[in-house]
Amino acid sequence: MAGLADHSLVQAADAVRSGEATSVDLLHACWANLDAVNPQLNAVIWQEREQAEAAARAADAAVRGGQRGTLLGVPMAHKDMYYQAGKRSTCGSALRRDFRPTVAATVIERLAAAGAYTFAGLNMAEFAQNPTGHNKTFGDCHNPWNLPYITGGSSSGSGASLAARFNYMALGSDTGGSVRLPASACGVTGLKPTQTRVSRHGVMPLSFSHDNVGPLARTARDCARVLTVIAGHDPRDPTSSHEPVPDYESFLDGDLRGLRIGVPVNYFLDGADQPIGAAMDAALQVLAGRGAVVSRFELPLMDAVAAYGGIVSRVEASTIHADWMRADPQAYAAHISARLYAGYAIPATYYVESLSRRGPILRAFAAEVFGKVDVLVTPTIRTCLPTLAETDIDHGPPGTEHRFMAVSANTRPFNYLGLPAISVPCGFDPNGLPIGLQVAGRPFGEGRILRVADAYQADTGWHRARPAILDGVKGRA
Amino acid sequence: MAGLADHSLVQAADAVRSGEATSVDLLHACWANLDAVNPQLNAVIWQEREQAEAAARAADAAVRGGQRGTLLGVPMAHKDMYYQAGKRSTCGSALRRDFRPTVAATVIERLAAAGAYTFAGLNMAEFAQNPTGHNKTFGDCHNPWNLPYITGGSSSGSGASLAARFNYMALGSDTGGSVRLPASACGVTGLKPTQTRVSRHGVMPLSFSHDNVGPLARTARDCARVLTVIAGHDPRDPTSSHEPVPDYESFLDGDLRGLRIGVPVNYFLDGADQPIGAAMDAALQVLAGRGAVVSRFELPLMDAVAAYGGIVSRVEASTIHADWMRADPQAYAAHISARLYAGYAIPATYYVESLSRRGPILRAFAAEVFGKVDVLVTPTIRTCLPTLAETDIDHGPPGTEHRFMAVSANTRPFNYLGLPAISVPCGFDPNGLPIGLQVAGRPFGEGRILRVADAYQADTGWHRARPAILDGVKGRA
Repeated sequence: MAGLADHSLVQAADAVRSGEATSVDLLHACWANLDAVNPQLNAVIWQEREQAEAAARAADAAVRGGQRGTLLGVPMAHKDMYYQAGKRSTCGSALRRDFRPTVAATVIERLAAAGAYTFAGLNMAEFAQNPTGHNKTFGDCHNPWNLPYITGGSSSGSGASLAARFNYMALGSDTGGSVRLPASACGVTGLKPTQTRVSRHGVMPLSFSHDNVGPLARTARDCARVLTVIAGHDPRDPTSSHEPVPDYESFLDGDLRGLRIGVPVNYFLDGADQPIGAAMDAALQVLAGRGAVVSRFELPLMDAVAAYGGIVSRVEASTIHADWMRADPQAYAAHISARLYAGYAIPATYYVESLSRRGPILRAFAAEVFGKVDVLVTPTIRTCLPTLAETDIDHGPPGTEHRFMAVSANTRPFNYLGLPAISVPCGFDPNGLPIGLQVAGRPFGEGRILRVADAYQADTGWHRARPAILDGVKGRA
Repeated sequence: MAGLADHSLVQAADAVRSGEATSVDLLHACWANLDAVNPQLNAVIWQEREQAEAAARAADAAVRGGQRGTLLGVPMAHKDMYYQAGKRSTCGSALRRDFRPTVAATVIERLAAAGAYTFAGLNMAEFAQNPTGHNKTFGDCHNPWNLPYITGGSSSGSGASLAARFNYMALGSDTGGSVRLPASACGVTGLKPTQTRVSRHGVMPLSFSHDNVGPLARTARDCARVLTVIAGHDPRDPTSSHEPVPDYESFLDGDLRGLRIGVPVNYFLDGADQPIGAAMDAALQVLAGRGAVVSRFELPLMDAVAAYGGIVSRVEASTIHADWMRADPQAYAAHISARLYAGYAIPATYYVESLSRRGPILRAFAAEVFGKVDVLVTPTIRTCLPTLAETDIDHGPPGTEHRFMAVSANTRPFNYLGLPAISVPCGFDPNGLPIGLQVAGRPFGEGRILRVADAYQADTGWHRARPAILDGVKGRA
């Protein structure tokens, strides 16, 4: 039976505002599902119930006092790498098991200013460094749709907590797909904004040239509401853009007439499984039904994007972790230290070349692609979802790394290119695991890809599907 | 006999404006000295006399037509690496003997908009990569004060042409001292602005994290006038600062009362020759006579600045030259290819670390130093000037590289720190070669260091001294 915890973020905020429900009701509804299924999922790794309950009551008092805020009274939990001064932030690593940063993330402050509060820390890959959700310190995170399967990573708990209906919105971070992959694998909606669109101040860095803060939530409208709150220049992150921030919800008019959709015939479908291509084709039919025009062509420069992007990501991660890797290499999972070690052998000139070509490559890519089409559509993950065992590269047989790397193949290119991209649920594979559709757009074109995603969700119900693991859970609300 | 060519830039501009002289007069006065001494100096490597004469006549017509411009009618010649669409730009290298860029440097366009024009290309170190002025392709540049001695580099022709009175202002570029060193060695004034103060669009890059465009001219007032014209954001160089541009001449009020001058007791005087320290002390007396207060203390972080700065410069230069170094390594002087080869062996993580520490180091340095004092004063070059032979590291005996590297030891730190610094003439060494005083300030504190330099020049005549090589040259004007 659908209850308060099944509300989308926007529905939850509206319910509090209209008096249909209190913030305490929302929180208790989340906790009912959390208590029932988190022991199997391992999505939440710490909780602060007393403080959350106090925040909920304060929000309810604020509502009664006439206060407004686009997120007033909405409980949230985020990937455990968003610093809240004085609170723990494990970053998914034993090295930070007791880390309590002294600074607060700008995005957390902006969400709080809009009325939201947090109640837990979510599981994640160690230092956000794998696309699967394996974690040797806090335990692997399991997919609510089918427990042996990966949640996608690195924002594993973000995806799982949304799918299992004990969270209304989770920030993830996306350096190579870490927002879009768990969104795809868990059947929720996840947005990676344009590079520099959202402040990274107070957020654990991995590759500062590729890191992005982005929301995972139930719907594209939820993501639009959150992006409107968190986007925009932050003096504490000098790399954040001064580009004006629109009300992203104002783009969601359902109108796709004449919208030009490009579907790449190279790279993104290499080795794709049949159900994935079929789900994408069905989704394209839905979009065409709203007036979009689909064309298929070869994308330029994909080899350069892959090669240069890999160098930038590895070098920056290896630099950030250099001191710890010298002092305590055993603290890292084997597959993560192996990746970091490789970064130390890359010559500096390769790195500078890789960064120097980024602007010219983006200009050439954009001139060729966005002259022809308005958005690109691809599968978010090109294969049917693998299990945790099938992608356990620390213990699996040779060849495991191939399945592991394939998970993020379709998301990584948009990090080097810096383009915005969203993943929306578009079906299920034969194992009952969600399939995601990725829509990518021009720099600062978040409004348009959100419009496409929202229009798609108006015509489909994949984003409302509910994992069977919740059947029979009795809510407190 | 002093003539029009002895005018400073500001005097020359004023003479044209007032009608005391025409632009054609200025140009011919420059040419008289150029024709007489350039064969010995090798400061000019190409000329365009017809086009310059036409520009001079056009400027004179503009003056008669009532036009104004702070540099109207002033002839100039620049280091041969400022692109002027369609004109040659050798960058001091055989590889660019016939290079004709299709873009124009923003700074050249801004100087032209203020009424200036160019008449020649000036010698420089190969790709701006040595601090001495050696050049195997176009020949070494010689010091007008004493021909066997170095001019300083890499803007060798900029310094020599100013000292020999056949130029009113030359742009140099300063990546490790290349504006300040030739200014010091040739007895003229040279300003390296704050990193990002001046657009680098259309200027040959060497190390984009350390490259600066800066003027060499006769006086601090000349530099102030030029900086006011060339500074400020340029959309074609996204790294250029949006910091507002004041009229830098408005700072030149001679008032040094209470100004706090810091003199470092570490690093900058290590191995200094006695005449250099004595000249600096005498200059400090002059500044104290205007009310400045001098204190001496140890500067923090100099080892880190030297180590990190060296990595950043080498890596960026090696990246920029990678294709040519593979295709045609013999085209480079031996000491330059050796430096570039070393850059290929530096790990990327060292480079990222070196860049990542730049901001924190600058903040720590500024907090400690600029809490105590307003400006720093050091010798620009810590030793008496060496000869070209003594610093010829491609052919000299072991130990030559030590003299070679010592030349830029005092200028390099301010490139990694990104601070503005000016060099003004403050005496002569026993060989009759000029000595330079370096004044460095806070980020975007060009106004203050120009004020110090201008006040110093009001009380001293070193910047008006004239090399004996010009004695007996008969002017055309």
